[in-house]
Amino acid sequence: MRLVVLGAGAIGSLLGGLLSEVGEDVTLIGRRAHVRAIRSNGLHIDGVTGRRKIKVKAEVAPSRAGKADLVLCTVKAYDTRAAAADARPLISKESIFLCMQNGLDVEKEAAHEIGAEQIVRGVTNNGALLVKPGYVKHTGLGDTLIGCPDKKWRDKINELVKALNSAGLPAEITERIHDIVLSKVLVNVGINPLGAITHLRNGDLVKNPLLKDLMKSAVEEALRVVDKLGISIVDGDIVEKTFKVAEATAPNKNSMLQDVEKGKRTEIDFINGAIVRIGEEIGVSTPINYTLTALVKGLELSAANTR
Amino acid sequence: MRLVVLGAGAIGSLLGGLLSEVGEDVTLIGRRAHVRAIRSNGLHIDGVTGRRKIKVKAEVAPSRAGKADLVLCTVKAYDTRAAAADARPLISKESIFLCMQNGLDVEKEAAHEIGAEQIVRGVTNNGALLVKPGYVKHTGLGDTLIGCPDKKWRDKINELVKALNSAGLPAEITERIHDIVLSKVLVNVGINPLGAITHLRNGDLVKNPLLKDLMKSAVEEALRVVDKLGISIVDGDIVEKTFKVAEATAPNKNSMLQDVEKGKRTEIDFINGAIVRIGEEIGVSTPINYTLTALVKGLELSAANTR
Repeated sequence: MRLVVLGAGAIGSLLGGLLSEVGEDVTLIGRRAHVRAIRSNGLHIDGVTGRRKIKVKAEVAPSRAGKADLVLCTVKAYDTRAAAADARPLISKESIFLCMQNGLDVEKEAAHEIGAEQIVRGVTNNGALLVKPGYVKHTGLGDTLIGCPDKKWRDKINELVKALNSAGLPAEITERIHDIVLSKVLVNVGINPLGAITHLRNGDLVKNPLLKDLMKSAVEEALRVVDKLGISIVDGDIVEKTFKVAEATAPNKNSMLQDVEKGKRTEIDFINGAIVRIGEEIGVSTPINYTLTALVKGLELSAANTR
Repeated sequence: MRLVVLGAGAIGSLLGGLLSEVGEDVTLIGRRAHVRAIRSNGLHIDGVTGRRKIKVKAEVAPSRAGKADLVLCTVKAYDTRAAAADARPLISKESIFLCMQNGLDVEKEAAHEIGAEQIVRGVTNNGALLVKPGYVKHTGLGDTLIGCPDKKWRDKINELVKALNSAGLPAEITERIHDIVLSKVLVNVGINPLGAITHLRNGDLVKNPLLKDLMKSAVEEALRVVDKLGISIVDGDIVEKTFKVAEATAPNKNSMLQDVEKGKRTEIDFINGAIVRIGEEIGVSTPINYTLTALVKGLELSAANTR
């Protein structure tokens, strides 16, 4: 299968690199320094799946990658639309555009540029870190779940799932991808902005009674939006799940905190901001998520001011 | 009049120093380094009221100050109770304990230690900065307003007001001190935590539409608590006033942001936290102020963790 990874940072390089190792025809599209390092020294992956050096194609410009059977999109949520536009030369009627990002509504962003029927949603629970250009650390092994909105994509998605599994990455097709995305977003709703604002690691957030209560309140408020939409989450008690995820990742600074510390834009608009937006549309008030969203946008502004 | 300033930091040293210069018998109670500097080199005041060096008594231990006609309390809101306990040796039946701090309910804190009938509330709108031990900068001239809860204190408070005026500090007795305190707190509700969390200066908060809207929402939510208490604020449109204060102090980092940047405890419990507490007591929901309070407490925890 001809695979193009759009936005090959940590997670995209990890998936693309390991898929290339098991024989898929992969091209990584990434930043110049990363592409240059991979071209001259290969892609180095170290961590929970062992240490290896992989020879894989890498390009800066998507247009140089040629037509793809499947485009794996791992750009930041807010870059989705621009990335999808750049990817148009890669896409034929037979191509899948697989959104593997965090956040709600990334498919809608992609659908501005690419036919909605070609867009597939996935979620990966692997953890990865770009240590330096060309070097990825696989920090946590997790499952990868992929939806299949149309029967005609089943063979291709099955092929991808098999390739991931043979690369040592547990993966499967799921009927309830939207439920899974939503439940991951709800966990992020509770953890991400709290860490980003207080600079506390995940474990410290749940150790503090006030912040643990705020985490609960933020998730419950988002659940009221989800309930009103008529969606019932199969994933059990999401508040408890949020606490468990924070405890299981106690020493981690969440991705939004990492973005804030680097002075980068965050994905708040696709997490708490999306809850506020949907809440407004369906008439559910979301003062806590509104406050969290505005404050994180303020932190982004503050970082931009000091650049 | 024998005046003791309890918690002579920037504002306490400014008021005490200028009162001493016009002939009042003043003792400043402050931190060791500040007291030592004042004893060896005098108190230096520079800024909007000119530059001078003042010889004024200074002590670390309140007990060494002797009985006071009036204790001027300018400690941080959260230190009020401890300061009032320390001040008991200074207090006779004829002494006034004047709370000149920011925040709601500081009188209640003092009343744990000192007879409620001796406690008087005041507000000062002067700005001051402790540049280094012994050196205070008077950054903004503002009025000082003092309540008079009991006729028997009127002569003494009048004497203080006259002394302040002759020291070049506009001051007056007011019938509506609680209204004035509340209106100052409501402005702080909108400005302080937003600056503390985003690290933005006051002017940048109102320039950003999202943060300006959050400022408005936080103040309006607090006003619903005030309304339910049956208090009508005479000070006009408090939301507009908050915007105006932020614009008038555009280049400033607010005091809560200064505390956060120094890794110090903030006065959040006496500002937004007090609104949440009162809201809970009277059944008015305050999700925005609750979120802001928990986040600022998280920032305090974060600073404590890195100490």
